[in-house]
Amino acid sequence: MSVERLIVVGGDAAGMSAASQARRRRPELEIVAFERGPHTSYSACSIPYYVGGLVDQANRLVVRSPETFRERYQIDARVLHEVIGIDLEQRRVRVQRMGEGGAWWEPFDHLLIATGALPVVPDVPGADADGIFGVSTLQSGIRVRQAVDERRPENAVVVGGGYIGLEMAEALCERGIEVALVEMMPQVMNTLDADMASRVADALRAAGIELYLEEPLVRFETAEGRLRAVVTSQRTLPADIAILGTGVRPNADLAAEAGLPLGDRGSIVVNERMQTPVEGVWAAGDCAQSFHLVSRRPFYVALATVANKQGRVAGVNIGGGYATFPGVMGTAMTKFYDLEIARTGLQEREIAALGWECESATIEDHTRSRILPGAGRIAVKLLAERGSGRLLGGQIVGAQGSAKRIDIIAVALHAGMNVDQVIDLDLGYAPPYSPVWDPVATAARQLTKRV
Amino acid sequence: MSVERLIVVGGDAAGMSAASQARRRRPELEIVAFERGPHTSYSACSIPYYVGGLVDQANRLVVRSPETFRERYQIDARVLHEVIGIDLEQRRVRVQRMGEGGAWWEPFDHLLIATGALPVVPDVPGADADGIFGVSTLQSGIRVRQAVDERRPENAVVVGGGYIGLEMAEALCERGIEVALVEMMPQVMNTLDADMASRVADALRAAGIELYLEEPLVRFETAEGRLRAVVTSQRTLPADIAILGTGVRPNADLAAEAGLPLGDRGSIVVNERMQTPVEGVWAAGDCAQSFHLVSRRPFYVALATVANKQGRVAGVNIGGGYATFPGVMGTAMTKFYDLEIARTGLQEREIAALGWECESATIEDHTRSRILPGAGRIAVKLLAERGSGRLLGGQIVGAQGSAKRIDIIAVALHAGMNVDQVIDLDLGYAPPYSPVWDPVATAARQLTKRV
Repeated sequence: MSVERLIVVGGDAAGMSAASQARRRRPELEIVAFERGPHTSYSACSIPYYVGGLVDQANRLVVRSPETFRERYQIDARVLHEVIGIDLEQRRVRVQRMGEGGAWWEPFDHLLIATGALPVVPDVPGADADGIFGVSTLQSGIRVRQAVDERRPENAVVVGGGYIGLEMAEALCERGIEVALVEMMPQVMNTLDADMASRVADALRAAGIELYLEEPLVRFETAEGRLRAVVTSQRTLPADIAILGTGVRPNADLAAEAGLPLGDRGSIVVNERMQTPVEGVWAAGDCAQSFHLVSRRPFYVALATVANKQGRVAGVNIGGGYATFPGVMGTAMTKFYDLEIARTGLQEREIAALGWECESATIEDHTRSRILPGAGRIAVKLLAERGSGRLLGGQIVGAQGSAKRIDIIAVALHAGMNVDQVIDLDLGYAPPYSPVWDPVATAARQLTKRV
Repeated sequence: MSVERLIVVGGDAAGMSAASQARRRRPELEIVAFERGPHTSYSACSIPYYVGGLVDQANRLVVRSPETFRERYQIDARVLHEVIGIDLEQRRVRVQRMGEGGAWWEPFDHLLIATGALPVVPDVPGADADGIFGVSTLQSGIRVRQAVDERRPENAVVVGGGYIGLEMAEALCERGIEVALVEMMPQVMNTLDADMASRVADALRAAGIELYLEEPLVRFETAEGRLRAVVTSQRTLPADIAILGTGVRPNADLAAEAGLPLGDRGSIVVNERMQTPVEGVWAAGDCAQSFHLVSRRPFYVALATVANKQGRVAGVNIGGGYATFPGVMGTAMTKFYDLEIARTGLQEREIAALGWECESATIEDHTRSRILPGAGRIAVKLLAERGSGRLLGGQIVGAQGSAKRIDIIAVALHAGMNVDQVIDLDLGYAPPYSPVWDPVATAARQLTKRV
């Protein structure tokens, strides 16, 4: 019997998680992974901390190198190799070395598409100028860090007030740069409700960041191909560098050209086992569609946690096992300096879009017993369906010890709990870690009175 | 229609939570609370931090004073009043002022027994000597702090290596006292499995505490009524003061004498609404029985979180509403210096006692992305039923950010999850707060391979 061959397109979290799982279960499987960048399996989420200087070497972000994959896992991880075509009929992919001509075909029995996401580059004049950076790949992170180290910029503009925008704003502040953040929406952190997002905006301003809300980007002003300023609908902001935190989209062009169906926001349609409709062809990670377990709708999200889980599930299945990825809750978190920010489930806007009705309660409390030193403030917002009381989502903004409390809400959502059940949860308590009623339970007590 | 009268016996967490809830719902109800100590509603869990000096004033531990209850809630909270008898037939309690003669009867329509727990005093010679302290009430905490402030003890012996023992050992160390801890069992933290407890023991030793395991207390050596040394089965330890961390028992003597049935460990039997079998007679808090939601057995636990919840439920019901307290998971946590310690569900010993079979997995990981400064170690142990994979419990010992992760496990237990469902939980991730797979999910991945 001939040896079967798995080709993985994309050498980051989803692709290499899958490859490792498949290897563990099928020692005889030939596994080749093509990655167009120079790195495999790195922590893209850590790029802001590398740019900010908390992490000194870019290679510390690499979890497993191509050498490790080759030597420890017998996975042929070929970096700087781009897959430029997928032929589902003949079961082969077309590959070329980056920067070289001459492509060739590589056959597969199993194919995992893990091509990730691409940054959304605003369609405005000057967007290709030198000094404008996305931060989606480790390569792009290295370029930003180099620019900061070598050019010593005085002024930076961050475009977009989401996760990447906030994290990069902090990183650039940490490097002594004057930072302005422009956001076209009336709030930062669009995945939070406006009332919770305003707490984040206050923290940005308190850190000295110039914050301009409801100001769409108009163009980048350049001189000799190099960025000079960022022009919004209201003003011109001098900028030695600009960071694009304008979101990502699934990198699904190859899959679409091959004829695979696309779903939410153009992500690759997969079932719970991460199978595309074509036998032996799988997709996982930031290019693949997920399922939202609260809305019960297909849902696109680009997050490392999801990519790792989907990759694991794909790998178990490719390896002959059986695993499913039931879906996501929309859990996400970040920080801005000491302010911890987290959300899960559906926010007000999403609930309204579903045509559902909700009640919410927001409480302020302390992260630990208020009488102990270091007790910080925490705000918890819970959302529940009107009438039924079914928990729909939660948001947390607060001091140290706040953000991971989102897990209480996320697990309660997984369990389909009503808000009054959250009151009864036997959560951990000790004065250094919580008030006797955890703030999440306190929010549930408030909300129960309303639904 | 005449005004109804609620009498609350015991003015701490359970009693006063109930009184406040009842007041909110029934403004016309007459509410009288008798508390034999001088304080109402205080944080007993914070006593070690008061003794250790983190909190300076004892009155900071008081959440609401008798005056607050009288003025803001119209609750007649009478401190230094002891209830010495309950007459269920005539619906009255016998009361006396502490330290005075002459008792009298007070009638009730509703009665809430919230008499709390009593410290277990070892039955050995010398146990009544001056210099030996329990720390169950704020009064007793104040006495310890006074003894430390005024007598400047050089040597302290803590008897018992549970929550109170650990917390008091740290508090006394913080005050510059040489501390020895003696424990009759082969491990500290008997609510953890031995392997996890040994991590705690290592931390105790590393902090300079002399730890003597498997050494039962034999007697206290005294001179002129004052403590001089603690004698174990193996040695004599000089001691200017000794702290009893030898556990508590329900203070249910009054209830038993009145004819109310007692359950697990002598706690007062109540239903989900906190009703005793006698109409209009309720019990809540450290004197009342709970129900263990994993073992599905009656269960006694003395914890502030449970007392507050039970008190709230009793108060809602007394106030004419409808609320139930489904039970506990056995969640508890503490810390020893920087080491965070938490547990929930059933431990190996409890599982064996039920005749159930389990598998376990213990993993070591980091509290946050390992490449960021401040990433500490965390150990997570999960237990699941053999065959079914049903999650039965979990234990966590680790650095900052470890303990509250127990909530993930606690909520998963509430939901009756299998361990493979824990892998799929959409938990919060950002490099400053977690590895991309939360350590709890990593433990679940390990355990799934075994069950």
